Amino acid sequence: MFELKKYIDAKSRIINRGLEKMLHQFHQGDTLTQAMRYSLMAGGKRIRPILCLAAAEAVGGKPEDALNAACALEIIHTYSLIHDDLPAMDDDKLRRGKPTCHIAFDEATAILAGDALLTLAFETLASVSIENGDQAVKWLQVIQIIAAAAGSRGMIQGQMLDMAAEGHNLNINELESMHALKTGALIEASLRCGAVIAGSSEVQINFLNTYARNIGLAFQVADDILNVEGNPALMGKAVGTDKLHEKSTYPSVIGLETSKQFAQKLVRQALQALETFDSKAEPLRAIATYVIERKR
Amino acid sequence: MFELKKYIDAKSRIINRGLEKMLHQFHQGDTLTQAMRYSLMAGGKRIRPILCLAAAEAVGGKPEDALNAACALEIIHTYSLIHDDLPAMDDDKLRRGKPTCHIAFDEATAILAGDALLTLAFETLASVSIENGDQAVKWLQVIQIIAAAAGSRGMIQGQMLDMAAEGHNLNINELESMHALKTGALIEASLRCGAVIAGSSEVQINFLNTYARNIGLAFQVADDILNVEGNPALMGKAVGTDKLHEKSTYPSVIGLETSKQFAQKLVRQALQALETFDSKAEPLRAIATYVIERKR
Repeated sequence: MFELKKYIDAKSRIINRGLEKMLHQFHQGDTLTQAMRYSLMAGGKRIRPILCLAAAEAVGGKPEDALNAACALEIIHTYSLIHDDLPAMDDDKLRRGKPTCHIAFDEATAILAGDALLTLAFETLASVSIENGDQAVKWLQVIQIIAAAAGSRGMIQGQMLDMAAEGHNLNINELESMHALKTGALIEASLRCGAVIAGSSEVQINFLNTYARNIGLAFQVADDILNVEGNPALMGKAVGTDKLHEKSTYPSVIGLETSKQFAQKLVRQALQALETFDSKAEPLRAIATYVIERKR
Repeated sequence: MFELKKYIDAKSRIINRGLEKMLHQFHQGDTLTQAMRYSLMAGGKRIRPILCLAAAEAVGGKPEDALNAACALEIIHTYSLIHDDLPAMDDDKLRRGKPTCHIAFDEATAILAGDALLTLAFETLASVSIENGDQAVKWLQVIQIIAAAAGSRGMIQGQMLDMAAEGHNLNINELESMHALKTGALIEASLRCGAVIAGSSEVQINFLNTYARNIGLAFQVADDILNVEGNPALMGKAVGTDKLHEKSTYPSVIGLETSKQFAQKLVRQALQALETFDSKAEPLRAIATYVIERKR
């Protein structure tokens, strides 16, 4: 029986060690480094890097080969949270049970820490040990995948749409498009990068894409549900905030019960996409189920 | 006789076409794309990309091979201006004679446009046409050089120091360290990347580094001097603002006349570093002189 908790703990340790190593290149006394560390080591779930490593594993690769990509993905996710929390954006004061970066430091430092993390992600990707030209070609491809997903056709466009939606009622299609960009693009990139580094076939990559699209959206639906009925103590943040801010969410657009059924359907579709994969995809299967069962 | 104006105009056209091509990948109706274009095509001097192309030329390479790096450098420079102008940072309302990005759009859009440009720079670098693995290795190196220079040990740290210095009197060494990071690091990277792409020797790269360090600082000293006695109409921005904000500048620390002599000395040192280069380094020589004679 595959034990997801053990798997996540083991992978999180590897990722956290990788992230620590990257931070150690910098002068530890700097305010900038402190702000970067504060947000990067604030106890994130490490979903994206774990998906990246698990995808490499699922297609028969060695997860450790994808470690730099995994760390870069988490670094990019962290920068996006810091900037999204800023007063000019979502103006959030609490994240993972701690004051957000611009509260713990100041606004300018938070903007620059975000910028520095985004830059560090690409430095991390370009600094990987290369044994031959073919590997270099592959890592350029990984950088391209991640930049495209994180950029103005992906995650950043999603944040633009999210902000534009404030005070408007989105329909279900608009809501899905927004999430596909805001969180889906980077989750897809996480799996694709792991697979590319492991030398996966295009067929497998396509299946992993389907898996990614489904769990990416399921993750968001689950987040919306947690914001209605989650336990603030477990989540480290307030609940009910979406309703307070009149945000369009799955529960607000299609109702709480339908949202739960929808999340389950998405997870079933994700699992179907993995049907041709062998037992090495067990972690991905378990993660799909975890995404909607998690309490934080 | 080498004509710098013609050279700069020709190279600027090539760079602007390259930047336009990159922007054209995006949906042109998007507010985000509009904000990116607004700042990127606002008539910057294109100093960094021109230095990159000129460095490739000086070591015997084809400047067009370095075009993606040149464009990426300008894109990174532009993002840094957008973020530095934000209310939480320098709070500037005018840049190159036009309202700054957060004034023309809004603060959230300006933060995201900056983020999107930084991400686009790395996408541009990773999307270069590669003919073989050796070229891929070289472009990974270029990404590493640019990320290191733009990141938390380079440009971003410089902006942190610049902000921390507000209201304090810096001594000449502190002033120089701050500029070496804030503007020097990316200028050095511009030349180094051009040289690396052109397959330069380490000896030549070292000479170009010396050139870069000197003109990078000369550029800043000249900027400080222009802020004292420049023509606001030519510069597209107000003068006297450094004094108003009690900023430490070369004129305020060592006096206006000594600053002018210092800038000239730096340019002489930059020219000396190019002594072993042939006529292909003529553009770099002319740029060194231009840096302190420019009116904007």
